Amino acid sequence: MFTLIKKEGNARRGRMETVHGIIETPVFMNVGTSGAIRGGVSAFDLKELGCQIELSNTYHLHVRPGDRLIHDLGGLHKFMNWDRPILTDSGGFQVFSLAKLRKIKEEGVFFNSHIDGAKIFMGPEQSMQIQSNLASTIAMAFDECVENPAEYKYVKASCDRTFRWLQRCRAEMDRLNSLPETINKNQLLFGINQGSTYEDLRIRHMEQISQIDCAGYAIGGLAVGEETEEMYRIIEAVEPYMPQDKPRYLMGVGTPQNIVEGVYRGIDFFDCVMPSRNARHGNLFTWEGKITILNNCFRDDPSPISKSCGCPVCKRYSRAYIRHLLKAEEILGMRLCVMHNLYFYNDLMKKIRDALDEGKFEEFYRLNVNKLASRVQ
Amino acid sequence: MFTLIKKEGNARRGRMETVHGIIETPVFMNVGTSGAIRGGVSAFDLKELGCQIELSNTYHLHVRPGDRLIHDLGGLHKFMNWDRPILTDSGGFQVFSLAKLRKIKEEGVFFNSHIDGAKIFMGPEQSMQIQSNLASTIAMAFDECVENPAEYKYVKASCDRTFRWLQRCRAEMDRLNSLPETINKNQLLFGINQGSTYEDLRIRHMEQISQIDCAGYAIGGLAVGEETEEMYRIIEAVEPYMPQDKPRYLMGVGTPQNIVEGVYRGIDFFDCVMPSRNARHGNLFTWEGKITILNNCFRDDPSPISKSCGCPVCKRYSRAYIRHLLKAEEILGMRLCVMHNLYFYNDLMKKIRDALDEGKFEEFYRLNVNKLASRVQ
Repeated sequence: MFTLIKKEGNARRGRMETVHGIIETPVFMNVGTSGAIRGGVSAFDLKELGCQIELSNTYHLHVRPGDRLIHDLGGLHKFMNWDRPILTDSGGFQVFSLAKLRKIKEEGVFFNSHIDGAKIFMGPEQSMQIQSNLASTIAMAFDECVENPAEYKYVKASCDRTFRWLQRCRAEMDRLNSLPETINKNQLLFGINQGSTYEDLRIRHMEQISQIDCAGYAIGGLAVGEETEEMYRIIEAVEPYMPQDKPRYLMGVGTPQNIVEGVYRGIDFFDCVMPSRNARHGNLFTWEGKITILNNCFRDDPSPISKSCGCPVCKRYSRAYIRHLLKAEEILGMRLCVMHNLYFYNDLMKKIRDALDEGKFEEFYRLNVNKLASRVQ
Repeated sequence: MFTLIKKEGNARRGRMETVHGIIETPVFMNVGTSGAIRGGVSAFDLKELGCQIELSNTYHLHVRPGDRLIHDLGGLHKFMNWDRPILTDSGGFQVFSLAKLRKIKEEGVFFNSHIDGAKIFMGPEQSMQIQSNLASTIAMAFDECVENPAEYKYVKASCDRTFRWLQRCRAEMDRLNSLPETINKNQLLFGINQGSTYEDLRIRHMEQISQIDCAGYAIGGLAVGEETEEMYRIIEAVEPYMPQDKPRYLMGVGTPQNIVEGVYRGIDFFDCVMPSRNARHGNLFTWEGKITILNNCFRDDPSPISKSCGCPVCKRYSRAYIRHLLKAEEILGMRLCVMHNLYFYNDLMKKIRDALDEGKFEEFYRLNVNKLASRVQ
């Protein structure tokens, strides 16, 4: 159940109720690909970092350790010891980006595992079955994430197929949710909008998929190499055709600036590996702008990463110590940086929600949108 | 101030008071080489794992980030955010094992840094100065850790030099502890016994160094490749010559079985990288014996690493999840394994102390000494 609490311009303040608890939106989902956050961060840590919803990857968990195994152990929540909402992606994106020798047909995709080369078939039904085994709160529909750039004709045919796949996803999830052995019988489905950078195809596809009853709708296939302005243009084009009473999820986005711009354009859900990936290389986010902790100027700096940050890392450790750990290749350095960046993203969303609650999002936007993208050191 | 509370056979229950708090002995020191525990474990985590005293490496911190920098930031306690006792080694062992092109002279050792090849000189005075800059609770004397096996004649001459070095360490520490810029003016010195596997040289050297007023005495140069029985023989030979009213530290030892055997022979302090190093490869300790979590039999095992373990990992995660994380090369897997093993070692020492308090160490020894070395899976 999604409730749209408030609007300011196109920006939306909402609340989604699930069997695993409430999600206050706008929200950033913290990415734990294989059931753990890269950089040594656990689900237990995520609570301290203010995470509301964790995202795991269907493809990764399907090939290792296997979704049947996770089902038999009680589902992903129990496996990773996380009792709040989990969203699983469909596996589609990874099949198209990681797997080798793939072949797309009407029934689904044939491909080889990136781990052992084993032949795998995944279609809408398989994706739903895997996600049902994982027992996530929200399952994503199986789609084709078209490469950028792509031919108009190919994109149009692909969108039609992705629409037919959504119909099959809906039917299969309904069947699975009614089975006695299903762990989460209240699993929710999000449909995915595609159409590359063609506005008319995006709108046409959005009109198609909004006919299928989904708990939310995502914009997929963006942030895959196109210019940022082009991404904003597509969001603006497709947004008016997205149901107002359902949450909207901009997949794989993005920088703090991208997120503020996304909220400004009516997006509710975000996810990105950026905070953890950047952190592992010492690139850290602060309200004053970005810093690279490996820079020599931090070698004897006793201050925290950010004085205005309330994260467990900034409460305990100095820039000098964290820089030293990264230089000495101590894994603790990565862990602390990942924790800081994830907290920063979750805190960013909280401050966005607070601004919306107070009717001051426009002001928040003006004050922060450029500063967030600046570089301090 | 060390107080010998109780003895049972040669086993000793003691208590050491320091400016950074009390150390209940027998104790295992948790090794944080560069100011962090390998495997992504922080000083903050160590408190949850029952660690009483952390050990850091002088050589590593001297070459990176530099002991002057740590001094200027307020010392190692502040740098790594740990307020309990810290012991620093002398740097000698690393100079002899890691550094390249070393040359030993009466004044000290000339060598090249293992990081950038820079020429470094370290003698007793330099080692004391570096450890004073780090401001550890206990500093180790600078000694030569003779290779095994070694010629009798060489070992004898080396022991004489290590004795002269101890005299210089004592004088230099007294000088440093009286300087206004010294952070820990109450720094304590432990002397180190050498003599390879020659009992007469070990005893002669112990008689020499016990003439120098130290806060404790260590047995060095063991667990460097000799047979375990030979190590026990040397401990038994030298122990009667160690002052009763000072703590005894068996350097770099060892397995849980080695530690129980060491306590049995009158040792109070231990340290070893084994719990963290083994953990990073999935080799875990339990009261029932050792297990290798990567084994296939654990792939769908919902039970914790050990049902009788109270560590934060066993409270939260299954063998199946931890095995999956290691297989997926998720750093969280290493972190959880390191945390379990360190807790196990600290818990082992607590149970040894409890047994001594109750006058039941002999019984504890009989029940556990072989079981601890057994393999379950």
